Order: sequence, then structure tokens, then C-alpha cells
Amino acid sequence: MANVSPLAPAEIAKLPPVGGVRLSTVAAGIKYPDRTDVLLALLDAGTTVAGVLTRSRCPSAPVEWCREKLRGGWARALVVNSGNANAFTGKAGRQGTLATARAAAKTAGCKPDEVFLASTGVIGEPLDAAKVTAVLDRAAASADADRWEAAARTIMTTDTFPKLATATARISKVRVRINGIAKGAGMIAPDMATMLAFVFTDAAIAAPALRAMLKDEVVDTFNAVTVDGDTSTSDTLLLFATGRAGGAKIAKAGDRRLKEFRRALHAVLADLSEQIARDGEGARKLVRITVKGAVSKRSARRIALSIANSPLVKTAIAGEDANWGRVVMAVGKAGEPAERDKLAIWFGGIRVAAAGARDPDYDEAAASAYMKQDVIDLTVDLKLGRAEDRVLTCDLTKEYVAINGDYRS
Amino acid sequence: MANVSPLAPAEIAKLPPVGGVRLSTVAAGIKYPDRTDVLLALLDAGTTVAGVLTRSRCPSAPVEWCREKLRGGWARALVVNSGNANAFTGKAGRQGTLATARAAAKTAGCKPDEVFLASTGVIGEPLDAAKVTAVLDRAAASADADRWEAAARTIMTTDTFPKLATATARISKVRVRINGIAKGAGMIAPDMATMLAFVFTDAAIAAPALRAMLKDEVVDTFNAVTVDGDTSTSDTLLLFATGRAGGAKIAKAGDRRLKEFRRALHAVLADLSEQIARDGEGARKLVRITVKGAVSKRSARRIALSIANSPLVKTAIAGEDANWGRVVMAVGKAGEPAERDKLAIWFGGIRVAAAGARDPDYDEAAASAYMKQDVIDLTVDLKLGRAEDRVLTCDLTKEYVAINGDYRS
Repeated sequence: MANVSPLAPAEIAKLPPVGGVRLSTVAAGIKYPDRTDVLLALLDAGTTVAGVLTRSRCPSAPVEWCREKLRGGWARALVVNSGNANAFTGKAGRQGTLATARAAAKTAGCKPDEVFLASTGVIGEPLDAAKVTAVLDRAAASADADRWEAAARTIMTTDTFPKLATATARISKVRVRINGIAKGAGMIAPDMATMLAFVFTDAAIAAPALRAMLKDEVVDTFNAVTVDGDTSTSDTLLLFATGRAGGAKIAKAGDRRLKEFRRALHAVLADLSEQIARDGEGARKLVRITVKGAVSKRSARRIALSIANSPLVKTAIAGEDANWGRVVMAVGKAGEPAERDKLAIWFGGIRVAAAGARDPDYDEAAASAYMKQDVIDLTVDLKLGRAEDRVLTCDLTKEYVAINGDYRS
Repeated sequence: MANVSPLAPAEIAKLPPVGGVRLSTVAAGIKYPDRTDVLLALLDAGTTVAGVLTRSRCPSAPVEWCREKLRGGWARALVVNSGNANAFTGKAGRQGTLATARAAAKTAGCKPDEVFLASTGVIGEPLDAAKVTAVLDRAAASADADRWEAAARTIMTTDTFPKLATATARISKVRVRINGIAKGAGMIAPDMATMLAFVFTDAAIAAPALRAMLKDEVVDTFNAVTVDGDTSTSDTLLLFATGRAGGAKIAKAGDRRLKEFRRALHAVLADLSEQIARDGEGARKLVRITVKGAVSKRSARRIALSIANSPLVKTAIAGEDANWGRVVMAVGKAGEPAERDKLAIWFGGIRVAAAGARDPDYDEAAASAYMKQDVIDLTVDLKLGRAEDRVLTCDLTKEYVAINGDYRS
């Protein structure tokens, strides 16, 4: 196990219970004999669910399962395993998801269509579903409301710390909670989703409204994070709403009573996705890239991602070098509107380049000092329009290569 | 200076003279005091020229100069410096190219429009053009026909070996030569061009015919090579034809007399571009990625580049792991037609995956032995259509990170 990322939050968030959610973690021996690797979440009857899933053309078997079952919008159980992604596993993989869903349905007393599944770990190796189904009854017997940190640890792979976040909001006069857990580390460039993230609320919200809100709120959270530009076969973000806080069930995402809830949901998603960037494989620095003055938000996003995914920008930041030349390169290759002679670039508050050349007043010593920080703000002003966007990433270090060259993930 | 790449050719090619081309290399002190950093090529009157240049939206000043002067199609001199890319250098950069072209025109006895320029090295730092102009007369005085290796060494930056290639062909009954030199190393994902490559022939071919041939022949050579997915601000490939071999000047690229010449030109470009992949920063393995069964060549190219640019595929290969799961991921994220359950994947002759799952007959020991080789052939069959494409890349090692994190390029 690698050392904990230097960018880890000072404290692991303590999550309170969420009405209608019970969790359990067990060791099923999927990859390693003595670590918990199966998470079972039991959800009260009436729980609604929404999700966003990887856009990969080669999705995992559990992703295909979830895509189909999300149409129903009802959930009673979630089964997640680490150690094997059940991806690129052919017919046996599909049979494994069906067997797991049937067993969990029996355990939870529900229909298989109300069971959601996720798997993370090695791609392309068969997953022995019998190992998972064998532990479900035992898991259910010990499920309780206070296993959030254990749940977050169970779904980790090369993550160096568990990722948890919580928030509260009021819907009319009802106080509701939102708890989330996630795992990330590598193969992180979600596109309409993330690696694995599970968010639970006791609010009463119909599935179509959950869906619409989640789709909006991932844009600037999970979809604005990249570690290495590689999109996983398994990216899965699920949002469950048990309704146990009480109050009338809200039917529409546009309902004004959801304003505060939406803000709290955004906060949980933003917190979890920032933790993923902070725990990028080998990361020593969190990098916040803002592109402004763009012709559209979409164009700003593409330029920001071109910078965020450039190995040369990322290695320069690892080397604590304010190398704006590589930023210019990454802007230039993005294929989006940009005029070299208008560009201005800042590291933190230090303008290093303006009007298409090095800033004549640029203070190299100040920039060098700034680059030693843990969190680097990199800003590019294209000076073409009014649109702006921001993405999070991390630096590219020798440890990333070691983790991914020496470990068969 | 880093050690020479283990993938370097066993011998540096010895290039014969090309009629009408004289070369000189001098030390102008652009970045380091004691290394040759300026190359001057003098070309006989009547030399035609064609080129392809970076598609970056933030090109260097010499790229903009060449783009304009290539319209004329005539060349008498080429001036190349290493140590500074003269990119993102604003008005001073443009003034520098003009001053250099004027000085070289005086030296060569031609018009500034017949002078071509290229610069490579750090981006965003001012280039003192006076250092270049000061050495041109001295360079011209010592120019001769046999300085090919010295020329290739002069344009190196983080390259670990000089890149040279040569071929001959017959046009009607006239025997002609083609010599080429190139530099690469990092920031290598050319798009309609390469880093720096200069090719010289004594054939007599009009500029429009040269242009059309060059455009065709880069598709499967320089544009099919990637080291890190980063496209340079300075990519420049120029092809000069002096006509000194004699024979009638050929006007059209489609002329059947050019058949053998075109094959020889392709061979020189392919040789140089493979040398660039073999000298990718930190490279320990050359990786040839073939995608077949695609719906179109364009689709096959995009999938091949998605695999070639995936940090997770590249680090797995550095770790000598036949990790087909990451290949599946890279196919899936490319956004091109692909059906998971049809995919087959080979490392060398070893089929590791078929029909969307691990090949049941896959021999892990054989695959592990294969992955220890210097040259890795990775083949993906999509089984959707008949189109095929191939790209070259290298692995991603800790040395890449060290070179680009510790060295301000």
C-alpha cells in the first residue's frame, strides 16, 4: 500500500446516518485474502435512484446492468466489489452480474431489477461471482447505519485515502442529509460520470427529478476532473433517495423547493471529485486550471482539458517549473479558437505571460516560490469572449509510472 | 546529456552528398556556450521547396515565416537553430525571423523570401537573433557537401542520437538521391507535420508536385508517430529539390516517372519518423500499434492513437505487462465504432483476448517473455470492417518524467 497522498484532507469526514440506508462490508477474498472487498447497501422500500455511467464503447458488465435497471428508477440494494472490474469478461461477466443481482434480491427481499451493481479493479480477468454471492447473507446480517468510512475503504483500489463527503439541506421545512463516498486514483477522465461514487439522501425525490439534477451537477464536478485522460470502462455514479426524512415527494427537478438541496448535492459531488484529483496516482500537487475569455464554455472546457491532460504541462508542474511555454503548446493543440498574440497566463497571482509573450515584469523568483505550493492555480485568459471554465487535475510524477508499471491493476 | 536510447539504430547512417546542397554547422552560444547550435544549408539556384507545418493555433515565429514563404516555392538557404524555439515571443520573435532571413539572404546572395527558418528548444523565452545573424558569414565560408551527421547533431535537443536517412531512386534514366535529417524526443504528436525534419534531393521536381507528394507521404510516416500526444508549436518538415541530378523537371505529382521516387521518399520519411519514436523521451520500447477490422482508415487511426497516447497502456508496456484490459479501455474511450464482444487483441503473435474476453488458450508465460522484447507489436482487430491503420509510439517511463520535470525545455 502506497503512502497516503500529501494532498489528502487533514481529516476523514465523519458521516452521520442517512434514514433508510444500512451498510455492511465483508471480505470475500476476490483478490487479496484479508481485506474487505464487498460493500452491501440495503435501502428501504420506496427508494428512488438515478445514475450516470461511462461513455466507453467497452463498458463493464455491471455498467450495462445499471444502465438497464436505471430505467426503472427504484432501488433496494447496492452491491460493490473491489479487486476485479468484471469488465471485458464476455458472457461469463453478464452471467455473474445476473447471479449477483438475484442473490442480493433474495437477501434484500426485492426484485433483481432493484439491485444495483458496481465492480472496480483489474479489467479483463474473470470475476468469480460465487465469491460475492456467498457473503451477501452474512453481510446483510451485520448491516447498520454507521459504516460509512468502512464502506469507502472497501471500494478503494490504488486510492491512498477513503473519500467521503456530507451535507445537509432543507426541502420546505424538512431537513435532509446527503452522504457520498467515492473511489478514484487512476484511469480518471470521466465523461458523464466518474470512477465509482455512491450518494445517498433521505430526501423524497422522484427518479426523473433525481436524474435531471444529477446530469446537471456532474458537469462541473466529476466531469471536470482528470488524472490521466484515460476514461474507465467502469465509471459509475449512483444517487439514491430513500425519502425517509419525510415530506411530500418532489416530482420535478425544476421545483423551487429543491434549490437548497441542489446546492448541497453540488457541494458533495464537488468535494468528492476534488478528493479524487487530490488522490490521483502519484499526485504531489493539486492543479486548478481556469480558462477564461473563451468563445463558449465548451471551448473553455476543451482547452482546459488539453492543458490538464498534457504530459509536458503535468511533468513541469511536478518539477515545480512555471513553464508557460508548455501551456501555450497545450492551448495551441486543443483545436479551439485561440489567438497566440492575445494570450495571458498566470500561475497563482503571478502573470507570467501577456499579449503573446513573456510578461516583461515577470518575477522568476516569485513564480518559483509559488510553484513549491501543494495547490497550483493556473489561469489562461484567451481574451476572445466571455466564457469561462475550470477543471481539476494533478501533476504527473515518477510515482504514477511506478504505480502503473509495477502493479497489475 | 542522457545515455543513448537502447532503441537507437546500431549504426548512424552515413549520408552521401546531394548535388546542390552544402551544409555548415557553428556554435552561436544560443543556450550553451560550447555546442553547435546553428545549421546553415546553402542551396543552388533553382531549388524548389515544399513543407508541412504544425496545426497548432499558437505556432512559432519561424513556422509563420515558412508558411508564408512556402507559397513562393523557391529556396536558396535554410537556417535552423536549437536551444530556443522562438515561439510565444510576440513582436520581437517576428522581428528576429525577419532579421535572420535578411542576413541569410545577404550571405547566400538571394531574396529573403528564399530563406527558410526553423527553431527548436525552449518556448516562451526571447531568442536573440543577433547571435544567429552574427555567425552566418562564417558558417557559409565553411559550408561543404559532407556535413550530414554534424547537421543532424546540431538540431538535437533532448534527442539521444542524431537521426539520418538516405535513399536513391531513378526518375526516367536519372539516378537521384534523397537525404533526410530530423530531431524529435518529446512534444511529439505531429498533425500534418513533425518536429523538425529537413529532406534534400537532387531531383528536378516543381514545387506543386513536391507539395502534393509530401502531403500524401506524411500521413503514414510523421503523422503516424506519437510520443506523448503533445503537438509542438514548431513542427516543421521541409523538402528541398535542387534539380542538380539533371533530367527534365517533373511538373505533376501524378507523373508516372515519379513512382520510384515516391517510394524512396516514403522510405526516408518512414525511417526518420521511426527513429523519432525510438528516441522518445525516456523510451525503452518501440511500440507498433495496428488496428484492423475498422470501419474506415480514419477510425482505425483514431483508435490506434487513443491506445498509443494512453498513459496507462504506455506504463503497462514499460512494466512489461501484456495488460489487454487497458487496451480495451483505450479502444472504448476513443469514441469510434467498436463492439466489445467482437474485440480480439494480440501482443506479437500471442492472442490474449478474443470475442470480448480473455482468450481461454492464452499462455501468460509466453506473453510475459514476449513483453521483455525491445519492439512490441500490439494488434487490435475490431471485426467490424476492412480498414486498417498503424501508428508508432514508445513506452512511458520514469525517465520521461525526470527529463520533463527536471529540465526546462
